[in-house]
Amino acid sequence: MSDAGFRSFMPRALALARAAADMGEVPIGAVIVKDGEVIAEAHNSPRTDHDPTAHAEILAIRRAAQALGDERLTGCELWVTLEPCAMCAGAIAHARIQRLYYAASDPKGGAVEHGARVFEQEQCLHRPEVYSGIGEAEAADILREFFKKRR
Amino acid sequence: MSDAGFRSFMPRALALARAAADMGEVPIGAVIVKDGEVIAEAHNSPRTDHDPTAHAEILAIRRAAQALGDERLTGCELWVTLEPCAMCAGAIAHARIQRLYYAASDPKGGAVEHGARVFEQEQCLHRPEVYSGIGEAEAADILREFFKKRR
Repeated sequence: MSDAGFRSFMPRALALARAAADMGEVPIGAVIVKDGEVIAEAHNSPRTDHDPTAHAEILAIRRAAQALGDERLTGCELWVTLEPCAMCAGAIAHARIQRLYYAASDPKGGAVEHGARVFEQEQCLHRPEVYSGIGEAEAADILREFFKKRR
Repeated sequence: MSDAGFRSFMPRALALARAAADMGEVPIGAVIVKDGEVIAEAHNSPRTDHDPTAHAEILAIRRAAQALGDERLTGCELWVTLEPCAMCAGAIAHARIQRLYYAASDPKGGAVEHGARVFEQEQCLHRPEVYSGIGEAEAADILREFFKKRR
C-alpha cells in the first residue's frame, strides 16, 4: 500500500470498542472497508444479544455480507481492535477478507499469531494479508480500564 | 453416559444435511440438545443467507442461545454431521457446549482432530467432551453424492 492513499480506520474501531464498554460488553470494535468506504461496523455484544458468536468481527462480517448480497467479502479490509480468536479468524478466512488490520495482540485468546494460528494451517483456504500494531496502546488501554473497573 | 439413557440425534442431523443439499448448500446438519430435548437445529446456508458464518453449527448455537436467553449453552450437546472447522470449534468453546458429537472427520477443513486443533490450544477456555464416528458412513455418503453431482 502507498502512504499517499492509506487511511486508518482504527480510530473508528476504537470508538466502537468504547461504545461496547459503555454497555458492559468486552470493548472490542470492528470496521469493514471496501474501496475506501466503511460498509459495516460492529462491537462485541454477546451478553446483550444472548449470542456467544456475537464478537465484533462476526457481526461486522455478517452485516457486510448482507450489505453486499454476497457471502464473500472479496477486496474488503477488516479493522479490529484485538487479535481475532479462532472463531473470528475462521470467519475471516471463510469471508475471503483481503486485509486484516488488528491493534493489540492477544496472547490469552488470539488465534492469528498465537495458539491455533488459523491462517497458518493447511486447512485454511484463504489467508488475508495481516497488519498488526496500529492503535495498539489505545486498544490495550481500553481493555485494561474495562477489566480494572469490573474487578 | 449409560447405554440405557443414550439416544442418538445424528439421524436428525443427517436429515438436515440432506435438506441443505436439496437447496444447493453443502450438506451439513446440526442439532442442539438439552436434557434430552432438541432446542435448536440448522443446516448449512451461507449461499442462501449471504452469510459466510452461516455454518450449521453457528446457526444452531445462535438459535439455542436465543431459545435459552443465555449466551452460554451450559449442559447442552451439539450433534453435527461433519468435524467442525476452526470458526465452529471456536464458537462451540465460547458457547460452553458440554458434549460434541460429530459423524465424519474432515481432514480438509476440520479443526478438532486436524489443523488448528482448537480445543487442544491453551487459549481455549472450554473443552467439550468429543465423540466422533456415529453416522460417519452416511454423512460421508451425503457429502460425496453432493460434490459428485456438482462436478
